[in-house]
Amino acid sequence: MPEAATAPAARATIGDSEFDRDTALTPRAPGVYDIDLSAGWTIISAVNGGYLLAVLGRALADALPHADPFTVSAHYLTASQPGPAVVRTDVVRTGRTLSTGQASLFQYDDEGREVERIRVLASYGDLDALPDDVRTTAEPPAIPPMGHCFGPEDGPAPASGSSAIADRLMLKLDPSTLGWALGQPSGKGEMRAWFGLADGRDHDPLSLLLAVDALPPTAFELGLKGWVPTVELTVHVRCRPAPGPLRVSIATRNLAGGFLEEDAEVWDSADRLVAQSRQLARVRL
Amino acid sequence: MPEAATAPAARATIGDSEFDRDTALTPRAPGVYDIDLSAGWTIISAVNGGYLLAVLGRALADALPHADPFTVSAHYLTASQPGPAVVRTDVVRTGRTLSTGQASLFQYDDEGREVERIRVLASYGDLDALPDDVRTTAEPPAIPPMGHCFGPEDGPAPASGSSAIADRLMLKLDPSTLGWALGQPSGKGEMRAWFGLADGRDHDPLSLLLAVDALPPTAFELGLKGWVPTVELTVHVRCRPAPGPLRVSIATRNLAGGFLEEDAEVWDSADRLVAQSRQLARVRL
Repeated sequence: MPEAATAPAARATIGDSEFDRDTALTPRAPGVYDIDLSAGWTIISAVNGGYLLAVLGRALADALPHADPFTVSAHYLTASQPGPAVVRTDVVRTGRTLSTGQASLFQYDDEGREVERIRVLASYGDLDALPDDVRTTAEPPAIPPMGHCFGPEDGPAPASGSSAIADRLMLKLDPSTLGWALGQPSGKGEMRAWFGLADGRDHDPLSLLLAVDALPPTAFELGLKGWVPTVELTVHVRCRPAPGPLRVSIATRNLAGGFLEEDAEVWDSADRLVAQSRQLARVRL
Repeated sequence: MPEAATAPAARATIGDSEFDRDTALTPRAPGVYDIDLSAGWTIISAVNGGYLLAVLGRALADALPHADPFTVSAHYLTASQPGPAVVRTDVVRTGRTLSTGQASLFQYDDEGREVERIRVLASYGDLDALPDDVRTTAEPPAIPPMGHCFGPEDGPAPASGSSAIADRLMLKLDPSTLGWALGQPSGKGEMRAWFGLADGRDHDPLSLLLAVDALPPTAFELGLKGWVPTVELTVHVRCRPAPGPLRVSIATRNLAGGFLEEDAEVWDSADRLVAQSRQLARVRL
């Protein structure tokens, strides 16, 4: 029954999805939130940085008078593990169109002391209040139709290992950036993919924070292996995404001194550039 | 006497220059520093954001165990004016190769209360301890020789207005990004220049923080006028710059919703990509 095989399952919605449940926060005190970091968003054993960014972004959306992240700058301090965590927020400044906040994610050491994992500074606003002028010169990424792209379920597992996050994502990689999975990295430092949530939830500004750090590292296409831990990641959300899958394009131009940058662009189904990010990551040479 | 006219004046050195004197901090208490923000780095009446970033960067270099900014993320809250200010720093985490700190710049309102101007998160390290591998695919900007580029002193003042900063900089703009100054903006959102300090001081990581935010805004080449206030700026310092002038290339790909990003690359005289930055700025349409 091919119809059944290709028919979408019951689609999750914004507010009622794995992503929403796993980023849900329990208020402990004004500006302080508890959360159990889900093991469902791990790569090997580390919790994905984009998921963590979404957790912090959701806390700030609650703590600030504006709901949409416009620009979020995160410095990653120590690796997060699944399990209990607390988010502490601080309102830095509130304005008419923009508000700025700070948030930190902490977990606990063996003696129960808080250990800081990530600290972010972020400025929030109202995406729907922006004028609808678009004078973008950037072009959407050249990526084949989704049916010509490949995910972990399509054979020689490109994202191998026990990465739980693979089950939560709809990730279809451009075959021209998949050489690393076949032992033939292109050397180009590019990665492109169709990106969605596996349960069909559409995107919103919070899931864009996940999207910018969910592809395999460009370092793989540069012939490097192993973990590429993020030191700093800043994301600009430029537009509320339209329903449907996103296209994410990542490029590295400067691998030097044991560090590289990754620039990501996220395009929605309406051909709008909805998010831009850059991260500084460390590579093991 | 053309020889005298072209001979360099006595050159300032790192540690003994206008830039060093104007970013010098007076310790008030551990991690707290007073400074009188110089009127020499203003554009019209606002203090330049890159100069302010260097002030904050210098405070963190003192407060942290590592001296070199690797990645600095700044959120600009309110416009700074020349005059007294205080920088308050906080050590977030110290590690073997990287340390992370936070710093805020405050000025005073009419009742003497502190008003926060900028808050930064930054991770510092030791640039000289990095391996010297370079696998950069980025190319230095195509910019004509300095003698074919133009500065404020070269005629129909491209950086018009009472901008004191123009006297402190050696800024020679690529004529192909100077259309705006002649009333014919290219529409391309690019800006390129040779960049140095007017007193001949060579560059170091702190002056790179100035370099990334010292060119005219790309918005001018997009046909926009007026102030383009920075909301957020993140800079990655990738290498200690070699002596001699820098080349700075700035590009905007997405002008939409009243905001634009500016991506800057800074190249040194040895053709090394020494800094990369991205800022989100607000435009008046």
